[in-house]
Amino acid sequence: MTREELFGWCQTRFGARFGTGTSVRELHGRDESGHFPPALPDAVLWPETAQEIAELLPRCAGARCPVIPFGAGSSVEGQVLAVEGGIALDMTRMAAILDVSPGDMIAEVQAGVTREALNDHLRDTGLFFPVDPGANATLGGMASTRASGTTTIRYGTMRDAVLSVEAVLPDGSILRTGNRARKSAAGYDLTHLLVGSEGTLAVITALTLRLQPRPEISRSYQVSFPDIASAVTTVIEALQCGAQPTRIELMDTAQMAACLAESDLDLPIAPSLLIEIAGTDAAVTEEIAVLAEVARANGAVAEKPCDLPGEAAALWRMRHGAVHASRRSNPGCETLSTDLCVPISKLAEAIDRTRAWIDAAGLDAHICGHVGDGNFHAMFLCDPAQPGELQAATEIHDRMVALSLELGGTCSGEHGIGMGKKRYLRAEHPDTLPAMRAVKRALDPAGIMNPGKIFDL
Amino acid sequence: MTREELFGWCQTRFGARFGTGTSVRELHGRDESGHFPPALPDAVLWPETAQEIAELLPRCAGARCPVIPFGAGSSVEGQVLAVEGGIALDMTRMAAILDVSPGDMIAEVQAGVTREALNDHLRDTGLFFPVDPGANATLGGMASTRASGTTTIRYGTMRDAVLSVEAVLPDGSILRTGNRARKSAAGYDLTHLLVGSEGTLAVITALTLRLQPRPEISRSYQVSFPDIASAVTTVIEALQCGAQPTRIELMDTAQMAACLAESDLDLPIAPSLLIEIAGTDAAVTEEIAVLAEVARANGAVAEKPCDLPGEAAALWRMRHGAVHASRRSNPGCETLSTDLCVPISKLAEAIDRTRAWIDAAGLDAHICGHVGDGNFHAMFLCDPAQPGELQAATEIHDRMVALSLELGGTCSGEHGIGMGKKRYLRAEHPDTLPAMRAVKRALDPAGIMNPGKIFDL
Repeated sequence: MTREELFGWCQTRFGARFGTGTSVRELHGRDESGHFPPALPDAVLWPETAQEIAELLPRCAGARCPVIPFGAGSSVEGQVLAVEGGIALDMTRMAAILDVSPGDMIAEVQAGVTREALNDHLRDTGLFFPVDPGANATLGGMASTRASGTTTIRYGTMRDAVLSVEAVLPDGSILRTGNRARKSAAGYDLTHLLVGSEGTLAVITALTLRLQPRPEISRSYQVSFPDIASAVTTVIEALQCGAQPTRIELMDTAQMAACLAESDLDLPIAPSLLIEIAGTDAAVTEEIAVLAEVARANGAVAEKPCDLPGEAAALWRMRHGAVHASRRSNPGCETLSTDLCVPISKLAEAIDRTRAWIDAAGLDAHICGHVGDGNFHAMFLCDPAQPGELQAATEIHDRMVALSLELGGTCSGEHGIGMGKKRYLRAEHPDTLPAMRAVKRALDPAGIMNPGKIFDL
Repeated sequence: MTREELFGWCQTRFGARFGTGTSVRELHGRDESGHFPPALPDAVLWPETAQEIAELLPRCAGARCPVIPFGAGSSVEGQVLAVEGGIALDMTRMAAILDVSPGDMIAEVQAGVTREALNDHLRDTGLFFPVDPGANATLGGMASTRASGTTTIRYGTMRDAVLSVEAVLPDGSILRTGNRARKSAAGYDLTHLLVGSEGTLAVITALTLRLQPRPEISRSYQVSFPDIASAVTTVIEALQCGAQPTRIELMDTAQMAACLAESDLDLPIAPSLLIEIAGTDAAVTEEIAVLAEVARANGAVAEKPCDLPGEAAALWRMRHGAVHASRRSNPGCETLSTDLCVPISKLAEAIDRTRAWIDAAGLDAHICGHVGDGNFHAMFLCDPAQPGELQAATEIHDRMVALSLELGGTCSGEHGIGMGKKRYLRAEHPDTLPAMRAVKRALDPAGIMNPGKIFDL
């Protein structure tokens, strides 16, 4: 089948749900990565069932036509760019919440459901879906990139939240990789092979997700420190004591300055921990006391409980708006964001050395991170009129990745590899890349699934 | 290379660490499954480094000689039986604890370290390794079978505890699938492809494990119920309230009778929950109050706090001795153990129907389970003088598995597939077995790794 014949079949089979117009192609030719030029698919298809995708994929394999699963387009490493053309599969019409079982604390959803839509739906159940990467991504997309975020320290990543997926392989087979039980030792863990595979092995069409009980109460507060190391040591010691914060986030001085410029909160411009503790009243009170004691012992210079109406919401709005606050602090800038994750005992060293490189190069960059996980992002803000800046930022990123690997860490804690970190993955996993490629060839012999992402064949 | 030439090479290369004597072969020809006849390897090798295994495996592939990784031999589904002969790789000389990083709460160990040896080593760190399947298995073996046990409800399974493995592929390449960071989104999750693969893809030689902070205090108690459903509903409601017990185990009346016959504890012979709560004093007190209230609302008929010296230890000794107590209750019996895991909302139905089938067939069987996970075991005790009994037990097991699949569950919650559940896996995952086989062929094209386990090629 030629690609022309394939497209003819699609038009007949899917009618108006198959489009080749420029505007829909442009809407599916970019994500939020910023540092890649758009790469447009040749066509966009809005499937409504796994069966439709099962009809499509073998035909695409026959025509050697790439297929790029597309959720909310909120990936940040170019995961959805159609770098070899092909068909973007827009999953947003597969947005049904199929089942919620409060007793089992699980939900079954189609891949195009967003995390906010799921949480809206769960509002009256006493349960919620905890993984929160900031963007209102689709759950299929979040699984595909193994997303995590601010709540990982307590609730884990998408790896922990996904019990099972329904997926379509390039040969047209429809799989259900697991079931509704909380654990299983029945054969290879294909669920977690697909979670994080960035659409390069199969199209995830539905997911069984673990939900969490909504805590009775939650309290937030902010603590300022003289330096990054004191903040990180506070977190390490608190976790060793068994603290289970629901969020514990770090911002450096530059990030706090950018965020506070847009916030009504009256906080010091200093390295900060933003903390949320949730549970029963007694447990929260006790855990706040432990954290405060550890923070003071590590030289905390100021504490700000956010107990007045609206304060906690303002604190977390500030955190989730950090990327945009950074961009607005430097209008028109080009951005480059990093995603190192290191053992937490090495986090302060990684951040301090990164900051020294940034300052020595005279660049503007803001640092924030999921400190409990050892994961941090440096957002470089480069002046496009100074082309040397983006180059300098890239060189620092190279050094940061080398440092992370030296410290036992990874080039990507939560954003995935996409196109942006392929060369870093080669440095990080020269040993495992041949096995990854062997798995890819075994499941996608024609190489149609999201080509050009994670690694080159 | 012929197998004779291979064995000659092994003798030269490994000297006395390569044995073909009957006694060592017999020691490596059985596990704790009980219901399979021994199947002896042709030889046993005690490797000391991953490099040695990397030299061996390509030669075995060339000679089409099976390789069976062997830890403590405590698997229960025939995972280590050398059903096609070959070389058993006894991993117990690779038993070094390579590194413990208290700040990162991780440990790096060789695959032959047992969980008790690791916990002994951790005694002064304030940390411990939480996965507890009962047996003092090797950590490599526990990863290979994706083991779990009594603490899964709080700390998860081996899937959650393993951050990264070092493994040797049949082509002789040595991989490190992850790193020391707590999370990563860098490429395919080969760690979790190998965890649970039962030695059929690679030899796991080392592991990076997540540790947990040792709780300040823990308290145990036992609660009796009029029936299974009341006990299960208690657990469901407590978990929905956010309770985080470290253990919450169920025993039915028959299991309690067998266990109490060997225990000094004065407890009712009735469906029981055995509960351990751990954390700070205030948190434990609060959680016990919640659980007691929920239990009473569900008709709990008696509560027994185990606060006197030795009582908590006796309670958990009783739980961990359940299998042996059952066997001793029926000396000389043949046993068959099941391992269903269902959504917890279906657990009471699954247990009650199982009990009805057992009683209708006039069989003796004891039921206990990890109720918070929806996982339970029926231990059938069959009189070898009545050959119909084992057959009847097997028929009930078939019905139980069909019921589990109908209820959205699995045939194996934690014991793996091995040889014993291959036909159940075919029923459970007809859709994913082709993909599992494709992955197997991609990584082990000669089919040397632990043949005859999980599925037939």
